[in-house]
Formats: sequence, structure tokens, C-alpha cells
Amino acid sequence: MSPDRFSNPFPKFAHLLPINGKWKEDITSWISEDIPSFDYGGYVVGAKINTAILYCKSDGVLSGVPFADEVANQCGLKVEWLVQEGLFLKPSETENGKIIIAKVEGPVKDLLIAERLFLNILARCSGIATQSFLTIAKAREVGYTGIIAGTRKTTPGLRLLEKYSMLVGGCDTHRYDLSSMVMLKDNHIWSTGSITKAVENAKKVIGFSTKIEVEVQSEKEAEEAIEAGADIIMLDNFSGEDLKMTAINLKNKYNGQNKKFLLECSGGLTLQNLAQYLCNDIDIYSSSSIHQGTPIIDFSLKIDH
Amino acid sequence: MSPDRFSNPFPKFAHLLPINGKWKEDITSWISEDIPSFDYGGYVVGAKINTAILYCKSDGVLSGVPFADEVANQCGLKVEWLVQEGLFLKPSETENGKIIIAKVEGPVKDLLIAERLFLNILARCSGIATQSFLTIAKAREVGYTGIIAGTRKTTPGLRLLEKYSMLVGGCDTHRYDLSSMVMLKDNHIWSTGSITKAVENAKKVIGFSTKIEVEVQSEKEAEEAIEAGADIIMLDNFSGEDLKMTAINLKNKYNGQNKKFLLECSGGLTLQNLAQYLCNDIDIYSSSSIHQGTPIIDFSLKIDH
Amino acid sequence: MSPDRFSNPFPKFAHLLPINGKWKEDITSWISEDIPSFDYGGYVVGAKINTAILYCKSDGVLSGVPFADEVANQCGLKVEWLVQEGLFLKPSETENGKIIIAKVEGPVKDLLIAERLFLNILARCSGIATQSFLTIAKAREVGYTGIIAGTRKTTPGLRLLEKYSMLVGGCDTHRYDLSSMVMLKDNHIWSTGSITKAVENAKKVIGFSTKIEVEVQSEKEAEEAIEAGADIIMLDNFSGEDLKMTAINLKNKYNGQNKKFLLECSGGLTLQNLAQYLCNDIDIYSSSSIHQGTPIIDFSLKIDH
Amino acid sequence: MSPDRFSNPFPKFAHLLPINGKWKEDITSWISEDIPSFDYGGYVVGAKINTAILYCKSDGVLSGVPFADEVANQCGLKVEWLVQEGLFLKPSETENGKIIIAKVEGPVKDLLIAERLFLNILARCSGIATQSFLTIAKAREVGYTGIIAGTRKTTPGLRLLEKYSMLVGGCDTHRYDLSSMVMLKDNHIWSTGSITKAVENAKKVIGFSTKIEVEVQSEKEAEEAIEAGADIIMLDNFSGEDLKMTAINLKNKYNGQNKKFLLECSGGLTLQNLAQYLCNDIDIYSSSSIHQGTPIIDFSLKIDH
Amino acid sequence: MSPDRFSNPFPKFAHLLPINGKWKEDITSWISEDIPSFDYGGYVVGAKINTAILYCKSDGVLSGVPFADEVANQCGLKVEWLVQEGLFLKPSETENGKIIIAKVEGPVKDLLIAERLFLNILARCSGIATQSFLTIAKAREVGYTGIIAGTRKTTPGLRLLEKYSMLVGGCDTHRYDLSSMVMLKDNHIWSTGSITKAVENAKKVIGFSTKIEVEVQSEKEAEEAIEAGADIIMLDNFSGEDLKMTAINLKNKYNGQNKKFLLECSGGLTLQNLAQYLCNDIDIYSSSSIHQGTPIIDFSLKIDH
Amino acid sequence: MSPDRFSNPFPKFAHLLPINGKWKEDITSWISEDIPSFDYGGYVVGAKINTAILYCKSDGVLSGVPFADEVANQCGLKVEWLVQEGLFLKPSETENGKIIIAKVEGPVKDLLIAERLFLNILARCSGIATQSFLTIAKAREVGYTGIIAGTRKTTPGLRLLEKYSMLVGGCDTHRYDLSSMVMLKDNHIWSTGSITKAVENAKKVIGFSTKIEVEVQSEKEAEEAIEAGADIIMLDNFSGEDLKMTAINLKNKYNGQNKKFLLECSGGLTLQNLAQYLCNDIDIYSSSSIHQGTPIIDFSLKIDH
Repeated sequence: MSPDRFSNPFPKFAHLLPINGKWKEDITSWISEDIPSFDYGGYVVGAKINTAILYCKSDGVLSGVPFADEVANQCGLKVEWLVQEGLFLKPSETENGKIIIAKVEGPVKDLLIAERLFLNILARCSGIATQSFLTIAKAREVGYTGIIAGTRKTTPGLRLLEKYSMLVGGCDTHRYDLSSMVMLKDNHIWSTGSITKAVENAKKVIGFSTKIEVEVQSEKEAEEAIEAGADIIMLDNFSGEDLKMTAINLKNKYNGQNKKFLLECSGGLTLQNLAQYLCNDIDIYSSSSIHQGTPIIDFSLKIDH
Repeated sequence: MSPDRFSNPFPKFAHLLPINGKWKEDITSWISEDIPSFDYGGYVVGAKINTAILYCKSDGVLSGVPFADEVANQCGLKVEWLVQEGLFLKPSETENGKIIIAKVEGPVKDLLIAERLFLNILARCSGIATQSFLTIAKAREVGYTGIIAGTRKTTPGLRLLEKYSMLVGGCDTHRYDLSSMVMLKDNHIWSTGSITKAVENAKKVIGFSTKIEVEVQSEKEAEEAIEAGADIIMLDNFSGEDLKMTAINLKNKYNGQNKKFLLECSGGLTLQNLAQYLCNDIDIYSSSSIHQGTPIIDFSLKIDH
Repeated sequence: MSPDRFSNPFPKFAHLLPINGKWKEDITSWISEDIPSFDYGGYVVGAKINTAILYCKSDGVLSGVPFADEVANQCGLKVEWLVQEGLFLKPSETENGKIIIAKVEGPVKDLLIAERLFLNILARCSGIATQSFLTIAKAREVGYTGIIAGTRKTTPGLRLLEKYSMLVGGCDTHRYDLSSMVMLKDNHIWSTGSITKAVENAKKVIGFSTKIEVEVQSEKEAEEAIEAGADIIMLDNFSGEDLKMTAINLKNKYNGQNKKFLLECSGGLTLQNLAQYLCNDIDIYSSSSIHQGTPIIDFSLKIDH
Repeated sequence: MSPDRFSNPFPKFAHLLPINGKWKEDITSWISEDIPSFDYGGYVVGAKINTAILYCKSDGVLSGVPFADEVANQCGLKVEWLVQEGLFLKPSETENGKIIIAKVEGPVKDLLIAERLFLNILARCSGIATQSFLTIAKAREVGYTGIIAGTRKTTPGLRLLEKYSMLVGGCDTHRYDLSSMVMLKDNHIWSTGSITKAVENAKKVIGFSTKIEVEVQSEKEAEEAIEAGADIIMLDNFSGEDLKMTAINLKNKYNGQNKKFLLECSGGLTLQNLAQYLCNDIDIYSSSSIHQGTPIIDFSLKIDH
Repeated sequence: MSPDRFSNPFPKFAHLLPINGKWKEDITSWISEDIPSFDYGGYVVGAKINTAILYCKSDGVLSGVPFADEVANQCGLKVEWLVQEGLFLKPSETENGKIIIAKVEGPVKDLLIAERLFLNILARCSGIATQSFLTIAKAREVGYTGIIAGTRKTTPGLRLLEKYSMLVGGCDTHRYDLSSMVMLKDNHIWSTGSITKAVENAKKVIGFSTKIEVEVQSEKEAEEAIEAGADIIMLDNFSGEDLKMTAINLKNKYNGQNKKFLLECSGGLTLQNLAQYLCNDIDIYSSSSIHQGTPIIDFSLKIDH
Repeated sequence: MSPDRFSNPFPKFAHLLPINGKWKEDITSWISEDIPSFDYGGYVVGAKINTAILYCKSDGVLSGVPFADEVANQCGLKVEWLVQEGLFLKPSETENGKIIIAKVEGPVKDLLIAERLFLNILARCSGIATQSFLTIAKAREVGYTGIIAGTRKTTPGLRLLEKYSMLVGGCDTHRYDLSSMVMLKDNHIWSTGSITKAVENAKKVIGFSTKIEVEVQSEKEAEEAIEAGADIIMLDNFSGEDLKMTAINLKNKYNGQNKKFLLECSGGLTLQNLAQYLCNDIDIYSSSSIHQGTPIIDFSLKIDH
């Protein structure tokens, strides 16, 4: 149940986030989304300093901590975390079905402003981290040693939180956006005439620092892409045995040549069906199932009284 | 399978959105999220005018049309919709498992920029509209005539799209934010000393145009809240029979008096368990299950070639 | 001279404002409005720490304190308030015609940056609070026990400050914006065909948590609106006696039925003419005279030397 | 009744505004201020194309046209103006007390979105233009040939609209902000030690393209300021006769020397008292009475039906 | 004089820019930078439609066209380009020392608003494209077949324009930002203990889609980096002969193994000294000299009269 | 080598910047420009507190300190400056060719985030300050006692930093933007018919607080401009001797009259050719050569290890 990148010392994912920048402005705007004008409840309860307890109430991997921290920070609250981001928590095995994961302190009205956003962030981030974790862990169980990666099918405006949570769960984010690794799919190839031409075009602008991935429909296309200098080959529309054979053929053919490439397979993979999908001749399986439409993890914040 | 607010003429949900405003700026920022610097793929394919087909590939209620339209608009594309927002589509019953729902036209590079965001929006919005629709439809099937409402547990930054999709699916949005109807929960009441005092405080600022909801733990508290002038009473922590009895008692007691109030029940309701939950003495059931962690609906955009 | 909501303990209006959000960004942008490029005066005076005194120089209710505080905060100044927001100050009754209301401390150049914005905010907010206060106080004097409310005719970009100041002055803000309580006026009714139809349409989307107000031209229309489920009835175009009779008729007719509604009257009311306007059968009088084109209250900031 | 800058051809004040920029973003944000989430009324009325008439209902100078135009533009409406910005309108002299000043056309829901903001802008801008106009007209009547100017005591966020309206009304805007002409007041002089030193400091950074104004308490200080190179001398705390004598003395003393300076007098001037204030030895009278706390001009928009 | 990527058809660099996004907002903000409040000159000249001619007045590569186009677009101007972006223009060889490169049409006041920003953009972009072009062209002349790349030492806020102009000039942009290819320099290695450890850390989060570059001080370190899986090796602090030998040794050692890596050399290279620097065993030379402190290209816009 | 405004006490240029405002938001956005999503390097190095040394490595005037300070501040770093902004540093005269100018302390990952932006700012600002300084110093050497000023040809988005650096270097910023001093050039005059008419138009809106400059082609035009009330006369297209004669004639003609004006000459001046250009009958020479395409000053930041 512990995928390979959870070595010691436990990685500090929060270091991936810049100390300042747009992601902090987004959090301000999310606070405003919830209070466009007056905070009537705040007027009712006032600003007496109080403490609150954050509980985790369903099993999963804690993720989203630096984003929740920034909510607290912008609301003038102090948070003490009792559990490390990335751990798989099992409240279902406790007596009362919940685990205390943090203590929060600040003015009552500000605790109540932060509460919903704080929980909404943790619930979604941890949901994705959990699904990612369960998927990579299951893959390791069935002997797959390669990469499970997400996709660009993330929630608009939340890509940072979701790609972050894939990492926390032990998966690969895949390329971040259209300005990262270029992917040449059927559309790109139709428009330029050939794989070779499309790769050539791309190389004129991406330069040496960026990778190129090409989607292919046949072993022949795969070879064309490799010769053209693609870094990753996405095998599309290959059925089970065919996929495996193609992978082996390609790896054999280019063994010992100065052609380093990876093979990727995408689409259809889920936590439920992965055992029959995975084979170690494919370097990467990518799937939106680890981050899209995943169940949330349940948290709650209770003010002490 | 058709809940009550789907009368003729079919409502035009898009009219709920202002013609200009922050929601359009959000869409610009979501485009930038996907292309922080260069659009390498755009350079590869160029700007030849092309057409594309939008397919729906899983059963559900189409939602998110005005948001997708704005993506297209900002990318210089024309969209012709062949299906109305709010309809329940059944691609599973077609021969090839997909339904054409729109035609899109514009420069290839801009079609490819719009594609992912366009689909990400429709997938999420339609997922929520579908879950909302299935829930209210099931409620009607089992004879419930009241309201099923969502919650404030929406995705940060996407509340507009998600509340919108609850409406498209036939459910009630519940209060929009902390500046709308004030809800006085246990925290608020502890902080002020009593339900009566908390309601009194709230009335000092919310004025006549805003409603007040009070969360209560007992019939006695419910009465206190009603006397204090609460518009909605949230019955919290009541078990099945007790809930029903309390509801009947309260309705009877205040029948014929100038006290108009609604009863709400929250928590735990899902599409799976609602048959045993619902009773018509409760006016509103609210549940995050109609919008949080719901499966997405699958769409795809294929460029003609 | 003290309207009813000025009970003890004195309300803390500042708790209505969220601890973070767009309103604080507005203040940053107002600072930039005054210094688009260089602060030449700042260069002349330098950054020596100094103190300054804030005086109130005309009679009125102090309002705008949390906004002024945020100006000071963004300019790195400390403010000590000697007078509570909401109090009616009478510098005209002092010897030198002014009252010290706060002490401010910080670098000279930053005191001078903050000065004008600080005063501009207090002058306008206090002007509205004062007019609101005088109006509600006069209404109480002539025996009116109901509500005096403002309107949406606020200064663009300053609605928060102005609605806030209506509350500080003892009046009701009326609905905050078009996303709050829906008002169905003649335009809405013409477009849908009837009051009944318009209310029905509105109810499809506003849900249970939001109120509906309907503007009517006759007692018959008022009855239609009440039957349709309107929460507030705005009696438009009724002359003095007719207004009163209609109000009494409606209240009598629906007495004892489960129809709770309020009656509102709008237009033309001013501090000067209210004595002849008000009658207790009307629950709410709304008027832009409490916040639009109101005189300002005079403040000044003097640096100690 | 027509102050001197209303020559032919009538000036086109709208040309003062850049074709793009922050002021247009402000208008978007003002639309969002009125509709933070849903436009419920828009859903009720729909998007049928309709026309509306804009009436002016109180006497005054029309101002704010380009700002209102931009509101219309952002709401997808067409506006045809029948009256030119800057004219003094007299609806009080018409039969029905109102003058048609524009026709507006567009979808009903968008007409209703634009309506309130459109009117709020015109009401405030025209209020200031009117007060400015009445003041300068009255000054001309009593024989004053100099300048009447406003101040920096403008509404936060609305300086552009208010300075614009001073111009439309025939007055001078005075310096726009702290980055424009530098003003050295008592605070600046105390901090630097002397008028001479303060002017010298300022000249180090403002360069040749920016003017310097110095506030003085005596004729001697005025002379020091003139010698130091001040472009404008603000005579502060001078009583009636003393003010006049000082002005004459200074003008005589520096006549024929290469010292070009203007004399300004500020504070206390109002439309009511200006006759006894003004003397032609003072070049500029500045007063916030032309733009702060001024009455609004009443407009209304009626949709045709 | 024509570097290798200037094949036919001429590349359309503008396709690298998304059709919408932050870069267009930047241009709006640059317009506001030049007109924080009033456009006095615009008032003087008015809005008569006029035409203007854009001249190039110094020799160089035209770059910045899509950015200039967006300025024109936001100012309501039409531009007709007579010369293609990327061409090397030689006005010095014409009779009057200038070449007409575009015609612009629109209201006079808007032509004057756009003028300065339009020219400022072209001057800087073309300056960088020119220096890049001259450098790569000179490198080809002396027989170098590899890559000349820029750096991250770009002007704050203008990275997009500057990296774009490196491409237009025929050079490589190098990595775009800290979220692109990771570079592990001495600081990173000190902090983690070894090259191997640093690469391992990086691989935990960058995934398969992003490259890794490692800066090394010796051939031994280079080998460690290659074994650890670095994609690019930056040879730092190597002197002429040593650099060449190391490059040859590394290439030989890993020839035929499945280790694909590139060698980069950085620092000190300029247009003046490159002939003695370049050797084909190094794949990439990076230098800020192609974009930092480069001379501008002179353009002017003349309104027809 | 020390131009006249470098008297004691050394001026504190940082006081020209407001304590809050858009310029600080720009810095946040520049940080985001460098890290649109993840900071991979930050993850590698972690957040251990460390110190670093800032070196100056080429001769020049240090400028940009408050901007660099704000970068540090936003990145949570402490900076101790050892050298004052405005000083001319000569690392070329030290043994190791570099001077320590500041110590910086903070978490390693944040030091590395700040590093590039910090250096990019200082390099550009100091480059402009240096060129400005060398130019004014050279002008003083050859006996010119007037003003050397910059232009509006600044880098888009960086005008504040560049005008600031002109001041630090001892030059005049010239007018800041189109909302400052109005300049009437040939275009403006063609559009209005005459210099007199153009000045008259401008005076209608700029008021008494803003200066007017007019560009003239002949002594006769200069006289027209002076009579019309221009504050500055820009002599355009005058050749050497003609320029001088015109200047003397104009000064003589208006000597003793109440016409205070300055004479400006623009275009073509560079550090190399100024000796033959300058004459003391011209009050101002303006040139973009002091800020456009200037070489940068080299700085580096080294983390202690």
C-alpha cells in the first residue's frame, strides 16, 4: 500500500509552490466569491478569539495543505497541523470515525469565513490524491513498475491544485499545459501533412529544452515519429496484444541506437480495470480517472465551545 | 423521468448570466492557465479555417452552454448548437454511442486552444446537472413534491457554474453565499447566547429583504426560532420518525397563525438512499451529493478532415 | 434623537466586512488613483515618523471606520480611535468647533499619502450615515415604527461603503443587488404577460432562500401578487389616502391566512416631507434621499509639529 | 447663463478619454458589483429586443455621456443621443416635466442590467457639471473673470468622472493627483525647514515639465515662494481686505520681472456666498463645493411597451 | 546571411500567441500607463479619420508584429503590413534612409494614443530579433551548426515579447521559466548533497514530460549527471581546449548507449567574440547578449496631412 | 564626475514611490511570469534558511533599490544594503572585479525565486542610471549648465523604473505621460489649423496646473507659441548655428516681459556627440539615448555554502 516515491524523508510538496504569485490571488478571489458584499454571520458572532478542530472523516490521502494554509493566513488564523500532507489516513478504523488533523485559532467570525473554503479545498485535493494513490498502489501490486500519469482534463482554474494532488498521491502530472511539452495529435498531423513535417515544425520553436510527444496509429507511424526525433510515442487505438507486440518491437528495433524514447498509452484505464491493462513494455499510462469525477474526502471544522 | 420545472416553453437558463462581468474574465484567465506563454501546437497547425463536431458520449443532462459559448467567443469561433441545454441525452441508445450536439468553426489553432477548456466545462457542468436531475426525478418517482437543494460545498472559483448546473438539473441552488440568506448554526448561537438573541442580531443588519434560517436540535428550539421570526428551520440531528413527528407538530402548531416558515433537513441524502429519507412534511432536503464528487459527462470535439 | 437599533452593547458594524477580499483591493486601487506614478510630495518631506490628529468639524454620525482603517493599514500607519463608529458627534457645540476623533502615527510621507483618501472616505460615509440617522430619528419622532430603507441608486464602485453607512445610520439597506431579492417591476410584468406568470418564472430559479417583491399599480394587482406568493408588495403610484386604504384592506383580507407579506412604498420621501408621508400600515418606506446627493461631513487631519 | 468656454464649436469632452484603459475595466467591475452571481430578473424577462427612452427630469447640465456609452456598449445596447453633453437642460419648463435625451435599444434583460448603472453615472456626473456650471456662471455674472477650480476631494474611484464633469460644467479640474503639479503645504514646509528648501527639494525631481504651488501664510512667505520659483501661490488664512491687498502688492512688486506666477485662494467658497468672495486680483478660486455633496440630476429609463 | 530556420514557407511566428489571454491585458495596461487620466492631446486633435505611415529607419529584423497589431486593435485602428515579420530590412541602402513597412488608419486621437506604444514595442522586439539574427548568422558563417540560445535574463513583464523575438531572429529561447525544464546549478547541488541526489529529487516531481539540465564543473561530474539521467549537461568554468576535449570524451564514451544528452556552454559569448568560441562538439551556446542591452531598431509613424 | 544634484544629504529616491499601489502588484506579476505553475527547483532545494551576497560586477550607478527591495519583501527575504542608491560603483578598480553591495537572507528556495528578477531589475535600472549619469556628467564637463531629459520612449510596463533611474542618474524625466504636460506637435497643429488655436484648445481642459509645450519649425512659429502662452518651446529641425541664434533672439525679445518660457531641443544627442551639441541658450536637451538600448550593469547573487 505504499507506492515507490514515499521514501524517507517524506517529501515536502509545499516547496513546489512559489512564495508569492497568482495562486494566492486566486484564494483572495475565492474568499470574495463566498462574500460578495456583507458577512452577515460575522456580524452576529463577532470577533472573539476562539479555537477549532479540523477532523478527517473519510479514508484517504491528505492533500491541499499549502492552499488551506494560505486561506487561513489570509483570514488571520493560525493553523497547527498534526498530520503530514501525503499520508493515507484511516478514520474508518478509529472509534468515532474521525481523526483530528489540525488545530485552528482566530477570531470567530474569521474562522467561519475560512471554514467552507478551507474544507472545499481539502476535500477536492485529498480526493484526487487518494484516487492517484490507490491507482499507483494497485499498479505496483500487480507488478507494474512504470508511470501512471494524469491529463489536462482538470477543473478550470484549479489545475495547480489538481496537478499538485496527483503528485501528492504518487502519480505523474503529465505535461502541465500547452506551453509545456508539445503533443502532436491526429489534428496536428492532418494539418501539416505528415508526422515528420509536424515534428520538424515544432522543433523550429520549442527548442532543445522542451520535449515532443507524437500520437501514432500504427507501428509504422511510431517509427516515423521516432526517426523524426519524438521523445515520447503515444500508441493510440491499439488493442491489448497488438499494443504489447508493438511496444516490444519498437524497443528492440531501437535498442543500442542513440534514440531514447518512451512509450505512452492513454484512455480507458481506471482503478477497477487496471490489472488487465498494464504491461511493463509501456512506460507511461495516462488517465483522467485519477483526478476527474473522483469522490471527495470528508473533512469538518468544529469550533470549540 | 421529467421533473416538474421542465415545462414548456423550455427555460433559457443562459438568461441568468449577466452579459458582462467577472465570469467572462474568469474564462480569459482559464485560457491563460492552459497557455502561460507560447502555444507551440498553434504554430504547428496554423490558422486555416476549419470545422469541428462536438459529441456527447455518455448519458446525461447537457449543461454549461453559455460558459462554453463564451470560451468559443473569446477564441473567435462560431458555435451552432443542435441540442438544447437542459435536455437529457442518451448516446448509449444510439448505434455508435455518441450524439452530435454542436458544430464549431474557426481557425485550426483556435479550435485546438478552445477544445480542452470547452470540454472541461461541459463535462463538469453536465455531470452536476445530471446528478441533480436524477436525484429530483427519483424523488418525484417516490412521491416527494418538495425541494431538493444543493449546498455551498462547491468547487472554489466555480460556484457560478455549479449552482447554475443544479438549476439546469432541476434542483434548488440553496443560498448562494454568505451575503445571501443568513444561516444561524450552532456556532452562531453559542456565540450570542440564544437563538432569540442571534436572530435579533441578524435582523439588525439583514433587513427586510433577506431571509433567516436557523439550525435547531429540538422541537423546542424550533419553536423558539419560529417565534423569533426565522423564515426557515433546519432540523438537525433528528432521526427518521422523530423528524417526521416534529415536522407535523410544528406545521400544526403554527397553522393559521401569521407565521410562514419552511422546514429543511440536511445531510446524508444520496441518490441511492433518498427513497427511505424523503417525507413531504419537510419542505427542503439539501445535499452536496448532487454536485460534489459527481461523475463527469463525456464529450469530445473532432476536427473535420 | 436615538433610533431603535442603537441599543447596548453598541453594534460593531465592522464585523460585517470580510477580513479579506475585493474591498481591500479597491482601496489599493484608490491609492493608485491618487499616485499613478511618483509621489513628489513624499520625496520632499521624507519618512520621519510623525503623529497626526483627526478632527471632526461638522455635526453628524461617524461612519466608514473600517475602510479608513484599511487605508491606514495599507499605508503602514497606526490609528487609535477615540470615538465609536455610529455615534452622532456635535463639534458645533464645542468651543473651537471640532472634536478629536483619532490619532494617527507613521512616516510623514505615508501620512500625507493616506490623508486625502482617508478623509474622502469618512466624509462620504458619514454623510450618508448622518442623513440616514436624521431620517429614521425624525420618523420615530412622528410615531412611525416601521422601516426606512435605501435603494440601489448608489455610487458606482461604492455600494459597500454606502449600504454600510445606511446601516450605521440606522436604516435598512434594502436588497443589495440584482442577485439578491428579486424585484418584479412593470417592465418584468409586461415582458411575461402577468404578475402571476412573472412570479412563477422567478420562483423557478431563485429557490426557497430568496424573497420576491412585486410592484403593483392597484389593490387588485396587489392581491394577485400576494396569491402568487410575493413576499413584499410595492405599492406604486398610490396617492396619500388611497395608499393607506389599500394597505389596511390588504392587511385585513389576509389576516389569519398563511400569507405573510410586507408592504413597501417608494419614491419622493425626504427628510423634509416625511412627517406627512409616513403611516404605520406601510412596513417599509424606501428612499434614495438618505444616501444620494447627501451633504458630506467635514473631517481634517493635522500633522503635529 | 453661458460661461466663457462654451464657445462654438461645442467642445467634444469625450475626446479626453482614451479609447481603452482602466476606466473601461472599472465599468465592467461596476456591472459585476450589481450582479455578483445570477441576474434573476434577466431570467424572468428574457432577451427579446426592445427599445427604451432616457428622460432627464430635473434642470441641469448633461454630463457623463462617454461613461454611459461604455455601459451601453458593454451591455450590447445601441444608444442614440438627442442632446449634446454640456448643454443645460430645463425639463422644469416643459409640459410634463421631462425631456427625452436618448433612445436605447437592445435585449430586454440587458436593458435592465444597464439601467441602474447608466442612471447612477449620469445622475452624479450631471450633478457635478451642474454645480460647476452654476458656480462659474454666477461668478461671471458678478464680474469675476478668473478661474474656478475643483479639488482632490473627489469620490474614491470616481476621480475621472468627477474631474471630467467639472470640465463639462466649465470649471478647472485643478491638479489631477499627487503625481501632477506638486503642492507644498504647511506640512511639507515644516518637514523641510523653509519654503526655499522645500521648493528646492521638489525641483530636484519634478523637473521642468511640472508646476509647483506653495501655500503661504503671509505676504513675506509669498515673496519667498515666488523667489524660490513657485508657479502658483496659494494664499491661506487671509481675510477679505488683507487678501486683496496682498494680491495687489505681489502683482505690483513682480510686474515686469521675469517671474510669472498665479495667485490662488481656497476654502469656504460656495455658490451662495461667492458674490462677496471673488476679486479679480486672485487668479484662481478653488472649492470642493462644485463637486462634493452636490445634488444629483434626475434621469429615468423607460422601456417601450 | 540567412540562418537555417528561414526556410520556405516563411514561418508565421504570430501563431505562437494564444488568441486571448494575459498578454492582451498587458497591452491594455500599457495603454493606461501612458494615459492614467485624461488624454489632453486627444481633446486638441479630435477624432477625424486619418491615415499614417510606419517607417523603419535602421537596419534590422522586423519583430513584434502581433503585439503591435493588438495595440492597434485595442485603439480601433486598421493596420496593413507591407513587410513580413522576420525579414531583415535595410533602410540604410535606400535613398531617403527609410522603408515604409505599414499603413495605419483610424481616428487622429487614437492614432496618437497608439503611436508611442506601437513604436516602443517594435523598437525593442526588432532590436532583439536583429541581435539574435546577426549572432546566428555569424555562427553559421564560421561553420557552427548547433544552437544559439537566449537566457532568463529578460526584462520583467516582457519575457513573452523577448523570447518571441529570439525565435524571430533565428535563435532558441532556452527554457521559458522556472516551471519549464529544471536546471540544477551549484546551489541546488550544494543543498541536496550530490548531483545524483538532486536529479533524483527533481525526477520525483517533474515527471516524464520535462527535461533536466545539470551544471557541472568537471568531466567526472558530467558523467555523474549523465548516469543520473540528465538530458542536458551544462559545462561550466571550462577553458577553451578543456571544453572541447571534455565534449569529445563525453560524446565518445556514451556513443551507442541508450543515453541521449546534449552539451551546453554558457557565458561570455558575444557577437564580437563568437568566432573564437564556437565548436561543433557543443550542441548549445547560450548567451544573454542576444537580448539584453541590445540596441533598438528605429521606427516612426507619420500621420498624413 | 559628480553632477550637480548629488549634494549632501544624498537624496532618498525611494521616497518617490508610494507605499502601496500598482507597482507592487506588477512585481507580484513578474514573479508569476517566472513561475506560472510549479517551482521545481524549489522542491529540490527546500526551505532551509541561508544567506547570499549580492555583487556588482561592472562600473556604474546603482539604481532600482526600492524595486529590488519589494521583490525581496514579497519573497520573504531580508536585505541589508551596504551601498547607497545613486552612487557610482567601480568594481573594475577592485582586485577581484566585484563589489559586495548587499546581503540577503531567507529560505533557499525563496532566494532562488527572487534571484533572477532581483538581478534583472537592478541590471536594467542601473544601466539607465549609469547612462544618464555619464551624460549629465559629460555635459557639465563641457560647461553646459542646463537640463538633460529623457523621453516617453520607455519600455512598456517599466516606465516607473526607467523614469526613476533617469532621476537617480541625475537627469530630468521629462513629462511622465500623456496626462501630464501637454505637447503640441506638428500633428496637433495640422489638425487644429494653427499654433494659437491648438494652444487655446488645450487650455480649455488642462487648466492652470499643467504646462504646455509647443513644437515649432521657425522663429516665427516660436513667437506665435510664446504669445499663445506656451510654457516650453521645442525647437525642431533647427541646425547648429540657426538653433543658437533663434534661442538668443527669443530670449532677448521677451526679456523683461511677463512671458516666462523655456527652450528645448530634442533628437540625435548621444553621450558621444554631446560636446558639439550643447549650448547654454537652450534650457533643455532631451534624448532617448540615456534610457533606450543602454548597456546593462552586471550583478550576481551568490548563496553562501
